[in-house]
Amino acid sequence: MPAHLTPTARVRRSPFFDATVAAGVTSFSVYNHMYMPTGYGDRMGEYWRLINGVSMWDVACQRQVELIGPDAGRLTQVLCPRKLENMRPGKGWYVAVCDHHGVLLNDPVLLKLSDEHYWLSIADGDLLLWAKAVAAECSLEMTIREPDVSPLAVQGPKAIEVMVDLFGDKIRTMRYFHFRETELDGIPLVLARSGWSKQGGFELYLSDGSRGTALWNTIREAGAPYDIGPGSPNHMERVENALLSFGGDTDAETNPFEVRMGKYVDLDAPDFVIGIRALWDVDREGPERHQLGVILDHDGRLTHHDLPSQVSRANAPAGKMTTNTWSPRLERNIGICLVSVGLAAGDRVSVALPDGRHVAGTMCELPFI
Amino acid sequence: MPAHLTPTARVRRSPFFDATVAAGVTSFSVYNHMYMPTGYGDRMGEYWRLINGVSMWDVACQRQVELIGPDAGRLTQVLCPRKLENMRPGKGWYVAVCDHHGVLLNDPVLLKLSDEHYWLSIADGDLLLWAKAVAAECSLEMTIREPDVSPLAVQGPKAIEVMVDLFGDKIRTMRYFHFRETELDGIPLVLARSGWSKQGGFELYLSDGSRGTALWNTIREAGAPYDIGPGSPNHMERVENALLSFGGDTDAETNPFEVRMGKYVDLDAPDFVIGIRALWDVDREGPERHQLGVILDHDGRLTHHDLPSQVSRANAPAGKMTTNTWSPRLERNIGICLVSVGLAAGDRVSVALPDGRHVAGTMCELPFI
Repeated sequence: MPAHLTPTARVRRSPFFDATVAAGVTSFSVYNHMYMPTGYGDRMGEYWRLINGVSMWDVACQRQVELIGPDAGRLTQVLCPRKLENMRPGKGWYVAVCDHHGVLLNDPVLLKLSDEHYWLSIADGDLLLWAKAVAAECSLEMTIREPDVSPLAVQGPKAIEVMVDLFGDKIRTMRYFHFRETELDGIPLVLARSGWSKQGGFELYLSDGSRGTALWNTIREAGAPYDIGPGSPNHMERVENALLSFGGDTDAETNPFEVRMGKYVDLDAPDFVIGIRALWDVDREGPERHQLGVILDHDGRLTHHDLPSQVSRANAPAGKMTTNTWSPRLERNIGICLVSVGLAAGDRVSVALPDGRHVAGTMCELPFI
Repeated sequence: MPAHLTPTARVRRSPFFDATVAAGVTSFSVYNHMYMPTGYGDRMGEYWRLINGVSMWDVACQRQVELIGPDAGRLTQVLCPRKLENMRPGKGWYVAVCDHHGVLLNDPVLLKLSDEHYWLSIADGDLLLWAKAVAAECSLEMTIREPDVSPLAVQGPKAIEVMVDLFGDKIRTMRYFHFRETELDGIPLVLARSGWSKQGGFELYLSDGSRGTALWNTIREAGAPYDIGPGSPNHMERVENALLSFGGDTDAETNPFEVRMGKYVDLDAPDFVIGIRALWDVDREGPERHQLGVILDHDGRLTHHDLPSQVSRANAPAGKMTTNTWSPRLERNIGICLVSVGLAAGDRVSVALPDGRHVAGTMCELPFI
């Protein structure tokens, strides 16, 4: 489906939109009611730039749900099945927000700016509605809103050099998922060591939407000695490293244990946490499904399918492949699967692709790399 | 921005997807995490077909939030500031779902299938999260989910003839916003006299996603004598008739009174309705903004801008034009505005277009036609 995307006032432009157009963006997705650049016309070049160099991404669509007020800390704990009592300001924690049945609603990063100020940096979904409803019905006092805060990611092994040139050598000691409020040429931002890749890097949370082009150009110029170039959350890299895509790898029944998020669930979190009792049950009984990889036997490069593909073992349905890709580093076709816990690494399966073909493959643990 | 849309498992295909591809769809938007066709390559032809003939639309992205159970009626009343006590099964009502501050969260059609079974047929936004949080926190007992229900719209003055040929002459007496559960060649659906145009027509809520192509083809064949063709929610027609586009014409502070939804708010609805107290305040003090049209002086056809344009009177900012279009029937450039209540029909204004031009215009009441 190469098809055009129709502009509409209902879908918002990122503060970096003009800069990405100037940089030659050729395709978008829509994420949190905002255009998200997905490519600049050089698919393999963008991949290798992320793996070997440094890439800059407009990920403004990773919107924040901001909680400010005396009960903000209480609400984060109501929403997140992780023990937050020892969380310190300046840290980001990956969390699994669940409904009352333990079903995953979003997998945000929770950033604690102060005891009364938090951001949930969200995947695609209106978690703002969930947070507002819970706060109001629990009579918790705070302001909940989507602030003017838009991340720009700088990812890849050379990202650190760009950041050192901009922010000084001290940044080398910044730890993963730590952040601090700062500015760059007067542009206000929160600088975090994070990002949706496994190649290392930073996210600059721009907190003045009118400065998008200025921030983009500052990064582009600082990155020039390192051959920085435009990119986007990279499908091939994220499948190789099995980063979770909420809404793509998950469905309306997925709980955190099914998608390798169990380590981010504290079963001894307070019993008022939404979903914790259901998660106790899942933990006791064991999940019915789990996430595994599949390495397909097919030699040529298979299309990336946007539909789930049925996975069968010995002609019996056993789950689905939720996404697939050609892996440039493994030089194999690989996929992420959500399958019955009866399946294990090493099992031989058949995958029914949406185009009608059946391809054999071998299950494996995730990540691939 | 003619740009490609990237396929992703995170954005779902409609049950009519294959049929729309076969019909030559050329562009999409994304709506409720689903592809929504927006054009078939004949912009003016699609418009006139809707105005003078009959058009069929894949609007599966108008998803349902389904409430089933003993407390389902109670929850609809908690969520909707309209008095629902006399609502009968088989009717759809347009409702303004608000947050606790009276801010509009969605403008769904509420369909009552029975005393314990409702659908909220939603605009673009995860109202499912809102409904689930409120129900759980209020300890209301029911199932809340997004069912496998996907509307196909048949719109235009000749839509009635297609429906009579399919369902019999009795359908002529069906009233606007009434519906009934039925089937067509064994395809289960809910047939409603409704749709997001002012040209008359029906929506067929397909309740078996595996039958999308079958339903599409059945309608296409029945419509052939009336020159039916593919179309989509039509921007030009909706602006002429000032149908509300939630998320486009509204912002994070819009209340129903600002966007001509006051007639769908019952101020004497029960005091447990979410937002009703805030709406009492707005009613007492009067809203600060209202929706008016603007007819621009410009003679040529202006681009449809997807960004809000500032509206000024006597050099003082007075609000924004939230969308604009060329009107084929008026042969004028028109726009929908959200402006200070200080502005009235007849006022002369200046509109600062996103491309830098300033165009003069005259405010008017809505709709235009």
